[in-house]
Amino acid sequence: METIKVLLEDQEIPRQWYNIQADMPTPMRPPLHPATGKPVGPEDLAPIFPMNLIEQEASTQRWIDIPEEVLDKYLIWRPTPLCRARNFEKLLDAPVKIYYKMEGNSPAGSHKPNTAIPQAYYNKIAGVKHLSTETGAGQWGSALSMACQMFGLGCRVFMVKVSYEQKPYRRMMMNVWGAECIPSPSNLTEAGRNVLAEHPDSPGSLGIAISEAIEDAVSHPHAKYSLGSVLNHVMLHQTIIGLEAQKQMAKIGVCPDVVMGCAGGGSNFAGISLPYVRDRIHGKSEVKIVGAEPTSCPTLTRGPFAYDFGDLAKMTPLLPMYTLGHDYVPAPIHAGGLRYHGMAPIVSHLVKENLVEARAYHQLDTFEAGVMWARSEGFIPAPETDHVIAAVVDEARRAKEEGKEKVILFNWSGHGMVDLASYDAYLTGKLLPYEMPDEEIARALRAISGFPKP
Amino acid sequence: METIKVLLEDQEIPRQWYNIQADMPTPMRPPLHPATGKPVGPEDLAPIFPMNLIEQEASTQRWIDIPEEVLDKYLIWRPTPLCRARNFEKLLDAPVKIYYKMEGNSPAGSHKPNTAIPQAYYNKIAGVKHLSTETGAGQWGSALSMACQMFGLGCRVFMVKVSYEQKPYRRMMMNVWGAECIPSPSNLTEAGRNVLAEHPDSPGSLGIAISEAIEDAVSHPHAKYSLGSVLNHVMLHQTIIGLEAQKQMAKIGVCPDVVMGCAGGGSNFAGISLPYVRDRIHGKSEVKIVGAEPTSCPTLTRGPFAYDFGDLAKMTPLLPMYTLGHDYVPAPIHAGGLRYHGMAPIVSHLVKENLVEARAYHQLDTFEAGVMWARSEGFIPAPETDHVIAAVVDEARRAKEEGKEKVILFNWSGHGMVDLASYDAYLTGKLLPYEMPDEEIARALRAISGFPKP
Repeated sequence: METIKVLLEDQEIPRQWYNIQADMPTPMRPPLHPATGKPVGPEDLAPIFPMNLIEQEASTQRWIDIPEEVLDKYLIWRPTPLCRARNFEKLLDAPVKIYYKMEGNSPAGSHKPNTAIPQAYYNKIAGVKHLSTETGAGQWGSALSMACQMFGLGCRVFMVKVSYEQKPYRRMMMNVWGAECIPSPSNLTEAGRNVLAEHPDSPGSLGIAISEAIEDAVSHPHAKYSLGSVLNHVMLHQTIIGLEAQKQMAKIGVCPDVVMGCAGGGSNFAGISLPYVRDRIHGKSEVKIVGAEPTSCPTLTRGPFAYDFGDLAKMTPLLPMYTLGHDYVPAPIHAGGLRYHGMAPIVSHLVKENLVEARAYHQLDTFEAGVMWARSEGFIPAPETDHVIAAVVDEARRAKEEGKEKVILFNWSGHGMVDLASYDAYLTGKLLPYEMPDEEIARALRAISGFPKP
Repeated sequence: METIKVLLEDQEIPRQWYNIQADMPTPMRPPLHPATGKPVGPEDLAPIFPMNLIEQEASTQRWIDIPEEVLDKYLIWRPTPLCRARNFEKLLDAPVKIYYKMEGNSPAGSHKPNTAIPQAYYNKIAGVKHLSTETGAGQWGSALSMACQMFGLGCRVFMVKVSYEQKPYRRMMMNVWGAECIPSPSNLTEAGRNVLAEHPDSPGSLGIAISEAIEDAVSHPHAKYSLGSVLNHVMLHQTIIGLEAQKQMAKIGVCPDVVMGCAGGGSNFAGISLPYVRDRIHGKSEVKIVGAEPTSCPTLTRGPFAYDFGDLAKMTPLLPMYTLGHDYVPAPIHAGGLRYHGMAPIVSHLVKENLVEARAYHQLDTFEAGVMWARSEGFIPAPETDHVIAAVVDEARRAKEEGKEKVILFNWSGHGMVDLASYDAYLTGKLLPYEMPDEEIARALRAISGFPKP
């Protein structure tokens, strides 16, 4: 009997998050106010976020204490196990050892509660009564619903319409946790009404849903907005994943050669990788760090590094990031969490600095990898997670070709229990591969051609 | 920060299952051959089960080694954490400490893989190529699908039709794991065709589905039948839950006053409780052991202890158990896993001997308890699990009334991620309470009036 899991006891949970803004080798470009072209200040963000989170957003303090109240909730499912995927290794028959961080056994089924819990907490202590947010596949919306319920806040979630229809269980889950879930574009906001006027059948996008949620928050008293990815404080909260993984790898004396995650807005990928990026920056390791994205929304692999809005209705500041253009509506693939036109500025900056690389995978290849995983390791991954599993398969193939032994660590970001309709479509031959055509990218990028250059 | 979870490392996993047949204070009645009225022998069971499992079924050896190949698969998710439900305790405001064994984070989402894995393994080494089985809510069918895939066996699952329709994701899950899932009653078997001829709209029942699965197994070469509950060897495999719990409780020096589980066929309840029943039998503890069942299928609380068939088509031996009659078709409540007319002979015998007690709960009360749980502890329970949570709420209320401090341990048998439609029905006021009318019980029991008396 070989040991498969490396555990941490409750009292071994990390007490601080890691803030990579303290260690960036070159300064990050600031977000800009679209009207003035000047860096945004705290006062610009105050209508949508509480001041304690705005401070975290801009902080350059390396370690930030995790509040006791947040730790208490984290302990419901954290620390998560680090697992060795021996059955999957056998199937691949390549010279690789594969470890994964199991983020799929949180109550909401993904890594998203890692930031939902602290965001609800910080809003609560700032006197906020109600949060509005958007969600793609529903992972984020359900996580925030749960967190708001735990801290006694109201919660309204705008869910990208195509996912709302494909994944009815996600809406029900949010309802169980006491939240309201609305398909976006909706008639509740001006942003939504404008889209519907032009495209009554719009499948929605994260960009549109973000506009709706921000508008909803700023137009209600005691309400704020909450974002499940992209922003610096979200990446910060997710570093608990990588910090635990490093403790666990140290326990067994193993160092990864490659660290991988799927990348939509960037949060689960940043979560596992930022503590390893730190080691690279400090010259302590040569670990390769790889993000996996869909070919239908190839932000890092085919988009430019540019200033762009985070949302369709141009309500956010201009963010320095890889982007496909804020009005890009990706094909309705099943990995809704990866259908975002932009990428976290932190992750974008690291790609720009060649500390992190990206690869894109076709939808069919990702489901093939996910089914292989389910049939060997049992757990059924979320369609988003299938992308990193496809990247692991790819990396194992490369290792075999090169005849090199490799240790792979990846983030098993969420389970697919409420995404089974997409597996059904795959298994019955109803899914098609989709690659974004060049002319579509060119068109989308025209929307940002007049913006300041980073 | 208070510790919430008690963990066991991989190497601390129990290496043997506990067989209560070694410790029964009075002998259990044997299963009878319906034609002869004589106890069944191994040769009677050989057409449907492999000999290694038949030996376990009748074994009186106290400890049975868990094979290495089974331990290797168990380690994918076991040992499971023992957790303290502090947030739920606060909500109840009663003098109770509540611990639960988290069986919902297995790949199939419940305790069922604990026996699916060894059953697939023992069939595999006996040369079997294919397993047929039935499933109620789908927890068992999906667990066996996964286990068969892991050991290279084919798998066909007859799923109670009302659950097949209410829970489409369960069928899809079985497909992801490579199994075939068929709504029962079906046209594939004589048993199914007979039911359909009389009741074309039959919602199905576990009794009918068992008949179909047995018929399917015996009519195909190299195929056997597999049962996810009721039988002695199933209870045996599930004892890993209680054995782990005892190690974990010992680590923190706490003894439970009450041990609870929901009871359909009896397997998750037996799993957590049999090691504690052993302590009672040996005079080492006074722990109270309580099974929670639905008022719509009140086998233990309203059925007689009698000889009855395990299935509608009378293909099983006569089993000594609490029963509502083998032709009883319970109301289509949402806790499909608790809609079984009988109860495991081991559990039945312990109830008869007053070592175990039972309580019945209304559907609406169980969902109320489940939503309370989800909103405080995060995890959304399966509708079956909601029954034991209702029993915990009830026990806490009693403790408060009596002014007595109590430690409660219960089995959190599975998550509700693919049962969300039933929560949706509850939250939108579409669920009704249902209690089995006296005349329905009387009618059902007439079917067994001529059988031998235990």
